[in-house]
Amino acid sequence: MTIKVAIAGARGRMGATAIQAITEAPDMEVVAALDYKFEGQYIKDGEVVPDGGGIPIYTSLAHLADFDKPDVLLDVTDPDAVFQNATEAIMQGIRPVIGTSGLTAEEIDSLTDMAHKAQIGGIIAPNFSIGAVLMMKFSVMAARYLGDVEILEMHHDRKLDAPSGTAVKTADMIKEVRTPHIQGHPEEQEHQPGARGADVDGMKIHSIRLPGLLAHQQVLLGGEGELLSIRHDSFDRKSFMPGIIMAIRHVMEGEDFIYGLENIID
Amino acid sequence: MTIKVAIAGARGRMGATAIQAITEAPDMEVVAALDYKFEGQYIKDGEVVPDGGGIPIYTSLAHLADFDKPDVLLDVTDPDAVFQNATEAIMQGIRPVIGTSGLTAEEIDSLTDMAHKAQIGGIIAPNFSIGAVLMMKFSVMAARYLGDVEILEMHHDRKLDAPSGTAVKTADMIKEVRTPHIQGHPEEQEHQPGARGADVDGMKIHSIRLPGLLAHQQVLLGGEGELLSIRHDSFDRKSFMPGIIMAIRHVMEGEDFIYGLENIID
Amino acid sequence: MTIKVAIAGARGRMGATAIQAITEAPDMEVVAALDYKFEGQYIKDGEVVPDGGGIPIYTSLAHLADFDKPDVLLDVTDPDAVFQNATEAIMQGIRPVIGTSGLTAEEIDSLTDMAHKAQIGGIIAPNFSIGAVLMMKFSVMAARYLGDVEILEMHHDRKLDAPSGTAVKTADMIKEVRTPHIQGHPEEQEHQPGARGADVDGMKIHSIRLPGLLAHQQVLLGGEGELLSIRHDSFDRKSFMPGIIMAIRHVMEGEDFIYGLENIID
Amino acid sequence: MTIKVAIAGARGRMGATAIQAITEAPDMEVVAALDYKFEGQYIKDGEVVPDGGGIPIYTSLAHLADFDKPDVLLDVTDPDAVFQNATEAIMQGIRPVIGTSGLTAEEIDSLTDMAHKAQIGGIIAPNFSIGAVLMMKFSVMAARYLGDVEILEMHHDRKLDAPSGTAVKTADMIKEVRTPHIQGHPEEQEHQPGARGADVDGMKIHSIRLPGLLAHQQVLLGGEGELLSIRHDSFDRKSFMPGIIMAIRHVMEGEDFIYGLENIID
Repeated sequence: MTIKVAIAGARGRMGATAIQAITEAPDMEVVAALDYKFEGQYIKDGEVVPDGGGIPIYTSLAHLADFDKPDVLLDVTDPDAVFQNATEAIMQGIRPVIGTSGLTAEEIDSLTDMAHKAQIGGIIAPNFSIGAVLMMKFSVMAARYLGDVEILEMHHDRKLDAPSGTAVKTADMIKEVRTPHIQGHPEEQEHQPGARGADVDGMKIHSIRLPGLLAHQQVLLGGEGELLSIRHDSFDRKSFMPGIIMAIRHVMEGEDFIYGLENIID
Repeated sequence: MTIKVAIAGARGRMGATAIQAITEAPDMEVVAALDYKFEGQYIKDGEVVPDGGGIPIYTSLAHLADFDKPDVLLDVTDPDAVFQNATEAIMQGIRPVIGTSGLTAEEIDSLTDMAHKAQIGGIIAPNFSIGAVLMMKFSVMAARYLGDVEILEMHHDRKLDAPSGTAVKTADMIKEVRTPHIQGHPEEQEHQPGARGADVDGMKIHSIRLPGLLAHQQVLLGGEGELLSIRHDSFDRKSFMPGIIMAIRHVMEGEDFIYGLENIID
Repeated sequence: MTIKVAIAGARGRMGATAIQAITEAPDMEVVAALDYKFEGQYIKDGEVVPDGGGIPIYTSLAHLADFDKPDVLLDVTDPDAVFQNATEAIMQGIRPVIGTSGLTAEEIDSLTDMAHKAQIGGIIAPNFSIGAVLMMKFSVMAARYLGDVEILEMHHDRKLDAPSGTAVKTADMIKEVRTPHIQGHPEEQEHQPGARGADVDGMKIHSIRLPGLLAHQQVLLGGEGELLSIRHDSFDRKSFMPGIIMAIRHVMEGEDFIYGLENIID
Repeated sequence: MTIKVAIAGARGRMGATAIQAITEAPDMEVVAALDYKFEGQYIKDGEVVPDGGGIPIYTSLAHLADFDKPDVLLDVTDPDAVFQNATEAIMQGIRPVIGTSGLTAEEIDSLTDMAHKAQIGGIIAPNFSIGAVLMMKFSVMAARYLGDVEILEMHHDRKLDAPSGTAVKTADMIKEVRTPHIQGHPEEQEHQPGARGADVDGMKIHSIRLPGLLAHQQVLLGGEGELLSIRHDSFDRKSFMPGIIMAIRHVMEGEDFIYGLENIID
C-alpha cells in the first residue's frame, strides 16, 4: 500500500524539498497540495503551472477529500495556518504531521483530544531533524551524571531571537532531570554584564551570531576532570527529510498523537 | 552500613586518587591495601609509612580476610596481576571491581562463572569514565539513524598504539548496529596513503598524536545536510572516580557479574 | 573610474555569484561574458536570453576588445580553458584574475613572462577565500614555534580526492619553515593501517568524508602543555567574493603578476 | 657565555617548573632564588632545604648582587611584589623578565623609563604562552578582513572573574584594527538577558565555566559564507616555558623594554 500524502506549504522551499523526498520514498506519494489560492492549478518543481503536469492544488481539505482522500497531511506552513489545517485534517480522518514550534499548550491539547476521538494517529514536531533530536535526548541522558551544563548555540546574523528555540527546549528538557544548582564559583564576578550568558535554573545559554554561520548547537557537560560535548550542525534543510518520512510512516501505524520527534526515536 | 573497600594498586597515582575519593564518599571506607610487599606497614598520602597512621598493607587477601574482611576489592593494578587478585577475591567472598582492558575473553568467562557460583556481584570495566562510556553509548544509539561514522581520537605523542583502545571499542560497538557499507565516494582516490584513516567495516578511525594533548575522542556521524558530533575530553584521572564509586555501590546490590560500565548506566 | 570586468564562466554558479558581487561593488561593473558559444546573446540572472536585457556574450576576447575593451578578465572556468583565456587576455592588454589550481608551473611561468612584457598586472589564485588563505598563512607562522602539526580536512562524501588540494598546499607551505622530523612516539605501533594518516615530511593529514559536510579544514599545532587550532569552514561560494573583488582592485594598481591570494593579504 | 638567572617566586609551582626549564636550557642557569624569607637556605625540587644542595635563597637583590650578580631576574610572584622587585633589579643592572598582568600603566611607564636610563633590556608579559599570543596576534590580523568577531573563553569553575583577562586583552587588541559596529541583526531580541554575551565595541565575549575544563579560548571570525576559528588550549603550565626562555634570551640582546610577548614573536 502506498501512503497518500497531501502537503500544506508546498510552494515554500521546505515544501519543495519535502515533495522531492516523499516522491523518492518507495512507500509514499504526494497526491495534492493544500494552498490558500491557485485551486485547479498544479505545482511542478516549486512553480505553479496551469496544466496538469504536477501536483494538483486544492484550497480546502474537504474539497480535496471528496476527490482523492489523502492518508496524511504534512503541514510545513507557518504557525498561523497550522492549527486550522490540522483541525480540518482530523475532522476528515486525515492524519496530521506538523512541523512547528508555534502551537500553544491549549492548541496541542485540543488537537490531541480530537485525534483521540477520531481514532487516528498524528504528530507535532518542533524539529524534524533526527540529529538535533538525538542531541537533545543525549544531553538529557548525560545530565543525570554530568549535571553542570552550558549550551552554546550559533546561528547566522539574520536571526532575530536569542536564545534559539532549540536551545531553550534543550534546557527545559534537561531541567526535568537535573538537580537545580548554581554553576561556576559561588563568588564569581561578572565584570562585563552578559559574559556568563543567560541563566536557566543555573545552566547557562550562550548565543553566537555571525555572518557565515548556518545553525549549530553544542551542549557542554562538565564533570571533575572531563568534558562531554554533544554538537549538532544543520547545513541544509534536507536534514529534516528523514524525520518527516519517519513521522509519516509512524502516524499510519497507530492511533497515538505525539508531541516531539524524540518520542518515536529510541 | 559502610561498604568496606580494599584497594590493590594503592601506591600508584590512580590508587592514591581512589583512596581519596572512597574516603570522601559517605557510605564507604578504605580498610586495607593489597600489595606484593610492605605487609605490616601503612599507606598515607600515597607514601608507605611504618607507623599506624594510614591504611594497613597486606600481601595476601586470605590474610587480610582473617583480620577485617572487606566487602569489595577495587583493583587498579596492571593486567598481569588482575586475574589472580580477582580470583582470590571471589574465593574469599569479596566482590571485585576491576579497571582493566587487559583480560582475555576466557579469563572474563572464568571470573563470571566463579562469581556466579559464589553468588556475589562484580564488575570489570575497561574504562571507568562515565563521560567516555556515555560517548560510546550515544554513538551506538545515533549510528542507527546516522550510519556514516568517522572516529577521531587525539592523544599526547608518548602514546605507543594507534588507534586507541577506546576508538577500537567504539567502532566495535557501533558495528553491532550499523549496516556495513563503504563510506565516501565509491571512486574515491587516496592520493597519499593513510589519508582516509583506518577502516573498520567501512567506518574510518583517525589517530592524532601531538605534544600537549591529553586524551580526547570525537565520534562524527553524518547525514544528508547535518552532522552530529559526540566528543569526550579526559583532562585528569579524577574523571574515573564517579564511575568507580558507582561500580562499588552496584556490586553490593546484586549478584550479577558485569563487563563494561555501560551496563550499569542508563 | 569604474573598472570594467569581463567574466569567463559566467553561466556557472560561481560566475553567477561573481556577476552579482561585482555589480554590487561601487567601483566596478561587468561589461561582458566570454563563452564558447551564444555570441550575440545576453546573460541575465544566470540564464541566457536573446534580447539585450543583460550582459552581452562574446566568444572571443579579440572580438570583445574591439567593441568595449574590459580592464580585467575574471576567469572562473575549468582548468582546460584557463590558460588560453589568460594568454589571449594578456595579449589584448586585459589584466587576468584567474581562480584555478590546475595550471602547471610552466604555464604559470609563461603567463608571468607575458604579463611582465605587456607591463600589466595579474593574479592566479588556487583559492579566493580570504579565510582559507589566512588559515594557511597563520599555520605557517605558528609552525615556526609549534612544529608538531596535524591537518584535518573534512568534506562531503562526493569528493573524489583525498587529501584535499588545500590540505596538501597547507602542508607544502609549512614544510618551507618547519624542521622535518618524525612526529609521535618513535616506537609508535599503527595496529590498523592508515590510523595515523598520510605523512608529509613527518606531518600528518587526515581526510574525513561524510554526507552533510561541506568544506572544512583544521590545522592542529601542538607544544608542550598546549594546542593551537586554526579552523576554516566554507559554507557557501559567497565566501570567495571578497577575495575576487580584492584581486580585481589589486591588478589595476600595479604591474606585478602574482600567484596566490596570500601575497596581497598582509 | 651562560646567562645567570635569579628567580622570584621559585617556591611556587610556576617557579618550580621554570627552574627545571631554565636548568635544561643549554645557555642559561639558575643562580639564586629571591624570597621574602629563608635567606641562607636552599631550594631543591620545590622544597626549602637547609644544606647547600640546591639554589641559594636571598631576601634582597642588593645582597644577592654582591655575591653573584645575575644577568636576569625572572619574576613569577604575585602582582603585589612585582613592581618593587623589578625596580630593584633595574637599579642593580639586572634585566627583568616579568610575568604579570597586574601592573598599572603608570608602573609600566616608570619601569620603562628606569630601564631606558640604565640602558638594559627588559620584558613584561601578561601571558608567556606563545600559543596564546599567536592566537591573539592572528585574531587581530584576521579581523581586518573578517570584522564580525565573537570570543568564547572556557575555564574551570573555580575561576572568579568573567570574562578572562586574555579574552578582554584579545578584544582590546582587535578594537585597534576593527571598525566599530553592531553585530547580529539590528532588531535582534534577547529574550533571556545575557544570551548574547558581553559587549565590547559590538564584539561579543562569552564565558563558559565548567568543572573539568582547564583554560581554553576560541576567537570566531565570520564572513559571508565562511567562518575562521582560532583556538588555544592550555593544558599545563609547561606551555609557558618556551616563552620564558625566549624572553630571557631576548632581554640579553638589546636595550629595549617590551610590554607583551607578541612584540618579540614575528
